[in-house]
Amino acid sequence: MKRLLIASSGNPEALAERFRATLPDYEILTQAPGQDAEPVPYVVAGKPGSGVFAATPGIKAILSLNAGVEHLIANPEIAADVPIVRLVDQELALGMSEWVLAEILAWHRNLGAYQAAQAITEWTPLKEKLARDRTVTVLGAGALGRPVVEHLVRFGFHTRVWSRTGREIDGATAFSGQDGLADAVEGADVLVTLLPLTAETENLINAALLGRLADGAFVVNPARGAQIVDDDLIAALDSGKLSGAALDVFRTEPLPADHPFWRHPKILVSPHVAAPTHADSAVTQMTEAIRRHERGDPLPHLVNRDAGY
Amino acid sequence: MKRLLIASSGNPEALAERFRATLPDYEILTQAPGQDAEPVPYVVAGKPGSGVFAATPGIKAILSLNAGVEHLIANPEIAADVPIVRLVDQELALGMSEWVLAEILAWHRNLGAYQAAQAITEWTPLKEKLARDRTVTVLGAGALGRPVVEHLVRFGFHTRVWSRTGREIDGATAFSGQDGLADAVEGADVLVTLLPLTAETENLINAALLGRLADGAFVVNPARGAQIVDDDLIAALDSGKLSGAALDVFRTEPLPADHPFWRHPKILVSPHVAAPTHADSAVTQMTEAIRRHERGDPLPHLVNRDAGY
Repeated sequence: MKRLLIASSGNPEALAERFRATLPDYEILTQAPGQDAEPVPYVVAGKPGSGVFAATPGIKAILSLNAGVEHLIANPEIAADVPIVRLVDQELALGMSEWVLAEILAWHRNLGAYQAAQAITEWTPLKEKLARDRTVTVLGAGALGRPVVEHLVRFGFHTRVWSRTGREIDGATAFSGQDGLADAVEGADVLVTLLPLTAETENLINAALLGRLADGAFVVNPARGAQIVDDDLIAALDSGKLSGAALDVFRTEPLPADHPFWRHPKILVSPHVAAPTHADSAVTQMTEAIRRHERGDPLPHLVNRDAGY
Repeated sequence: MKRLLIASSGNPEALAERFRATLPDYEILTQAPGQDAEPVPYVVAGKPGSGVFAATPGIKAILSLNAGVEHLIANPEIAADVPIVRLVDQELALGMSEWVLAEILAWHRNLGAYQAAQAITEWTPLKEKLARDRTVTVLGAGALGRPVVEHLVRFGFHTRVWSRTGREIDGATAFSGQDGLADAVEGADVLVTLLPLTAETENLINAALLGRLADGAFVVNPARGAQIVDDDLIAALDSGKLSGAALDVFRTEPLPADHPFWRHPKILVSPHVAAPTHADSAVTQMTEAIRRHERGDPLPHLVNRDAGY
């Protein structure tokens, strides 16, 4: 019998049940079987504890439950020649667009300010701007960045998109490379990162980059916590350079109770919920990838370890 | 010299300055001149105090500064044969779409719940739904309703649109008439009204209609306060039938300090800011309407007093 391991610290049984339906010819494991066991060609990987990959023999491919795979690339238990498949799921992109637009529109239309005014029974209309009065820069033009950019353009925001390769998206201004980055963020009112976490993007959002934004800018991070230098972000908020930040991801998750982000009046903390993996759709995609691989067809969305995503 | 009166309790001078540039052949008044003065063919009307229209002779047309004109239709000082022009301004529609989508997306993605969790340092991801798991009903398919419906459809919400005439909008299900209304709201997760205030729409959103919504539904009113029965809304929130309401308009504005909406934990109050009139664009439109009318061409966006808008 063919075997598949679900290596997740979450709820592997819920996924296992789905895979038993979609891959009835497979034995579905939720525990690493040990190196002396029968081979396990496919591993569906969330963020398992250490030792799991080392205790799984005969891995032919790893299918990530997340769009971000930096923890798998960095895992020394995974042989360098084992292909890793990113989760590129329409549903991740849908959820991400909703969340990013919710945060940007709520900031843009002062919903937080009106909530604060309501708390003190204050009726004070603010000067409302239209989307076309704001510039939004999106870092990343991939499966997640593109739909966000498209929604922003439809609302009428001046939209800039920065990517490694300078990918063009209708209605937005495209930028690329390190020089392009400075231009892409110069004077922007909103900065959103949808980049993968790589050696290049770690600490990318630092004091120098934040300093280029417009005064009173807003930063949105639903990507990876380590892309932002925490202390630089807090300094920019405290100086008044930034008016706020919506953060869904953090260097350590759950965000430690003593982290200053929790109590900062200009920071909105949410618990990594911008683009949750939807089990049904993830299982459908992975099943399809496995069937293709069985037939000798290439795996889709293969991770490029050099690029880091 | 031709004469134009700006009848607004707001800041008539700011508008007057713009009209002096766009209509240099006109004398621009900001005070009613009295019945014995020279005629004033055009009146640009916000919500002036009583007596203003009675003290203005020779009115040939009234140009509303607002999309809603129920206060002008009901004003006994305005002769029944004086045409009233609604403000149908692309910018009103843009602002409205931004605000409505901001409120719906923020509710849909639990931003308020996460803010409450942050206040007590609690990291608890909720089960996030996608737009396609929600049904949104929009009342009104006109200049304001249509773009809101189009954005909702693009996000993937199941979108229903109800109007007097059953106007169709791509991707949404259209309903019309009194019977259609019950079907349009049945089981909806979000109800948005973008209707004008008329005899038919006053108190439209009452206990019976709210009772048809899905349990835990959300109500959004950026149209007119009198469309909602205040006590019925509060009862539906208190019973748990509704999970929340975002209200931008009220029967009395500013909302009186002792009104229970201010302190209701499930109500978001904002001070009539969803779709502010943008002076430049309004003056451009009105100047064009006046020039057309001078040439003998019909006025655009004429109010139908029988329909009430």
